[in-house]
Amino acid sequence: MTKTVAGNYFEDFTLGQQIVHATPRTVTQGDVAAYIALYGSRFAINSADTFAMANGLPCAPLDDILTFNFVFGKTVPDVSLNAVANLGYADVQFKARVYPGDTISSTSEIIGLKQNSNGKTGVVYVRSIGVNQDGVEVLNYVRWVMVNKGNIDAPAPETVVPELPVAVAVADLTVPEGLDFSNYDRTLAGSVHGWADYDIGEKIDHVDGITIEEAEHMLATRLYQNTARVHFNQILQADSRFGRRLIYGGHIISLARSISFNGLGNACFVAAINGGAHVAPTFGGDTIFAWSEVLDKAEVPGHDDMGALRIRTVATKDQPCANFPDKGEDGRSDVSVVLDLDYWVLMPR
Amino acid sequence: MTKTVAGNYFEDFTLGQQIVHATPRTVTQGDVAAYIALYGSRFAINSADTFAMANGLPCAPLDDILTFNFVFGKTVPDVSLNAVANLGYADVQFKARVYPGDTISSTSEIIGLKQNSNGKTGVVYVRSIGVNQDGVEVLNYVRWVMVNKGNIDAPAPETVVPELPVAVAVADLTVPEGLDFSNYDRTLAGSVHGWADYDIGEKIDHVDGITIEEAEHMLATRLYQNTARVHFNQILQADSRFGRRLIYGGHIISLARSISFNGLGNACFVAAINGGAHVAPTFGGDTIFAWSEVLDKAEVPGHDDMGALRIRTVATKDQPCANFPDKGEDGRSDVSVVLDLDYWVLMPR
Amino acid sequence: MTKTVAGNYFEDFTLGQQIVHATPRTVTQGDVAAYIALYGSRFAINSADTFAMANGLPCAPLDDILTFNFVFGKTVPDVSLNAVANLGYADVQFKARVYPGDTISSTSEIIGLKQNSNGKTGVVYVRSIGVNQDGVEVLNYVRWVMVNKGNIDAPAPETVVPELPVAVAVADLTVPEGLDFSNYDRTLAGSVHGWADYDIGEKIDHVDGITIEEAEHMLATRLYQNTARVHFNQILQADSRFGRRLIYGGHIISLARSISFNGLGNACFVAAINGGAHVAPTFGGDTIFAWSEVLDKAEVPGHDDMGALRIRTVATKDQPCANFPDKGEDGRSDVSVVLDLDYWVLMPR
Repeated sequence: MTKTVAGNYFEDFTLGQQIVHATPRTVTQGDVAAYIALYGSRFAINSADTFAMANGLPCAPLDDILTFNFVFGKTVPDVSLNAVANLGYADVQFKARVYPGDTISSTSEIIGLKQNSNGKTGVVYVRSIGVNQDGVEVLNYVRWVMVNKGNIDAPAPETVVPELPVAVAVADLTVPEGLDFSNYDRTLAGSVHGWADYDIGEKIDHVDGITIEEAEHMLATRLYQNTARVHFNQILQADSRFGRRLIYGGHIISLARSISFNGLGNACFVAAINGGAHVAPTFGGDTIFAWSEVLDKAEVPGHDDMGALRIRTVATKDQPCANFPDKGEDGRSDVSVVLDLDYWVLMPR
Repeated sequence: MTKTVAGNYFEDFTLGQQIVHATPRTVTQGDVAAYIALYGSRFAINSADTFAMANGLPCAPLDDILTFNFVFGKTVPDVSLNAVANLGYADVQFKARVYPGDTISSTSEIIGLKQNSNGKTGVVYVRSIGVNQDGVEVLNYVRWVMVNKGNIDAPAPETVVPELPVAVAVADLTVPEGLDFSNYDRTLAGSVHGWADYDIGEKIDHVDGITIEEAEHMLATRLYQNTARVHFNQILQADSRFGRRLIYGGHIISLARSISFNGLGNACFVAAINGGAHVAPTFGGDTIFAWSEVLDKAEVPGHDDMGALRIRTVATKDQPCANFPDKGEDGRSDVSVVLDLDYWVLMPR
Repeated sequence: MTKTVAGNYFEDFTLGQQIVHATPRTVTQGDVAAYIALYGSRFAINSADTFAMANGLPCAPLDDILTFNFVFGKTVPDVSLNAVANLGYADVQFKARVYPGDTISSTSEIIGLKQNSNGKTGVVYVRSIGVNQDGVEVLNYVRWVMVNKGNIDAPAPETVVPELPVAVAVADLTVPEGLDFSNYDRTLAGSVHGWADYDIGEKIDHVDGITIEEAEHMLATRLYQNTARVHFNQILQADSRFGRRLIYGGHIISLARSISFNGLGNACFVAAINGGAHVAPTFGGDTIFAWSEVLDKAEVPGHDDMGALRIRTVATKDQPCANFPDKGEDGRSDVSVVLDLDYWVLMPR
């Protein structure tokens, strides 16, 4: 009996299947330091215990995208080890903040299956949940991935495509427990612009660019215990379509979030991700830039110290964003675009 | 008087010499995070406090090979700064687990000396001991290294070659204090295979490969405060036989251990290393693969919840291991082999 | 209204201007581990809680240069985002030690301004202060930087050049609170040489060299939340004079400090930096070496267990320092020199 886990193929998934993922992870101040070293994140609420406490939190919570990467990483060995592509995200809700010392574990349910017409691959829809050591949900999200069939002759399952919300409803956004922005210090935060200062339709060039080294994305992806082989194994990748190691999509989200600080410095929390696409692959040596657009604004019921902004952040490679590289009239993204992310942030008024 | 430490040469060692190594090191959650980022280790017992506590431990201990690297690193300035090669290990016993907050320090005794017939180098046999802040032994091992003579005319010492065990006896394996596998959760651990499922002679291809970047092995080797110059100094190495920086052997052991998770996911603890050879040097850009063979199985007296497996793990560079690259009939390893390690692991039944 | 911070240009600074810098930072054991991984620092007082406690401290403090990098990093977005060059440091006083768990924040005052004759740039003199969460000063220093004008037509300010001390007076050196070297263990520290063993004029070749990878200096510079674009953005830098990413000067200071251990192993604390110049830029792939000269010795009033050494450390690139590469008769540094740093250390007698 082989002892090696080969990952699931499309035919191995069944509708309603429940998966308990392995490798619970105690997250620590070591992970927080590594995250800052990898991305240079400057959101004060994640950077300083004093700042977090002045805003009602017990100490500095993890950056929400770091939490996302941890929860996501645990799903890879079961869900996407044989994936061709990570196609999309929906209904990504950050339900509780994670603090150093918490232990994260993940479970998933298969909520949709659709074999592709080529008969060689299929799309798997997965709802994954991350919980802390007390069983409190910290993250709940759907993603769908294209997965290879292991046995081409395996019969196609009944097609079930789940209905997914275009965006998370404002009423479903979770305000971090204890959070109170009434003493929020914009000087220490590094941005004078609050929720009231942003207009729907406004575009922001985040200016800064960060070049990615191979060592960096591999360190990051291993930190999240994400095991997808395409990120680590140059011998394997030399024979792939790209000939190179591919960078984990969450690494680009983290970079885009960090780069977005310059223009969205008070976007303290990512409350939800409405949708997102990794438009093009990225590789070592690429330089990531980003720009954002304010899609919507909403008040947060019961919290008149804050508001929600619906943001679309577009990241590019090797292309500064002063001209906001975007989709053309044909609906196709500019060739420089690598990420198109739609999400809600919480910001002091 | 020169203030710079040049390291010991072969003639500087005397039989029975006791060395107290410098640089005690408090190991922290920061080191644990760095280790995961460097190797992607997924052994649940090292990853989650909750998992470790469910198995009777106070919190997640350090990966045993991380402990090895810390204890080893301290010996380098005194033992192997002028080493030509690290020839072998024997009788490597992990005596107590190390937890974040512990402080490790190392001492050594010279237990053997043998000048080589060329008169330019000699072999030094060293028993090194790592202790924690309470003086509890955490690691006790022998290694032998070939060291340059500083003065070719220095007389050869009497040849003393210590008798070393081919393998650590099962009776000498130390079970971590408090460890109780009766509630061990194989789902969370990521492998369904327990001690009873492995057969002597069984071979496992660990499948995964990890490409090493220069930045990674240097970060790792500095983390261990290992000062051997060949790892860091490209100007020095440009004039060497290889023309390149050499990767520290412990980095390869750590990678092999991490890669072995896929097939040995419940090998929670390395109880002992019986022997090991760095068969060939490795360099930045190499991709490491590994396969393992079950050499032996043993019950652990007084612990019917666990068993010991004697494993041989062979790591290769740039060569997947589906065909188990090994020694040929002439006893020489395949050209792809870089590490050949023989060790005992503890695994739930 | 643009939301993106473009940084201050020369004409944006006014004499006496007070700046509260953003992004307070809780420093942790994660940062300490990252620092050791980046530089391989071996000063025992920073490495082991047990060693620090034996010398009267509550636990291992941060390496002083790590503190410097954190305090410095916060000033960059306001002071040097549009800097052409970091020209010098003076009167750098380490006033209190920083321990894991402390939160650092920074403020600055503009103490001098001088437009250059080309009318395109000017020199800004800044006194910056880093404090911990209790408001205790941990660092107080002056630096001056050449900053671009944003508007060439902006009028030149009145020239004010502050008088700065050539060196920090011995009476102004701060001994870490609680420090008592009477139980200092030179064996564990890794150097037998105390203050009494050093002679004024003595030169030390620190022997070791460390090659810098792009990933390493970017990880470091982001760890300090230093946002200067020249370090991260290859697309931007491709059009620069050098065509390459520039390495942050503090990275070189940290490397030089770490390399200086071999010869100055008991230089436990950097009490002050008298002055320093980044003589030439450094780039990924450079190998850093260093040598030091004892400029002066002083007793520390009230502390007969220690003394102060005034050290000059010169770092080179791609040039071993056995011949002490230095300034020529024309006062110009050897082409290999990248750093020339004059500082006071505290050392046990």
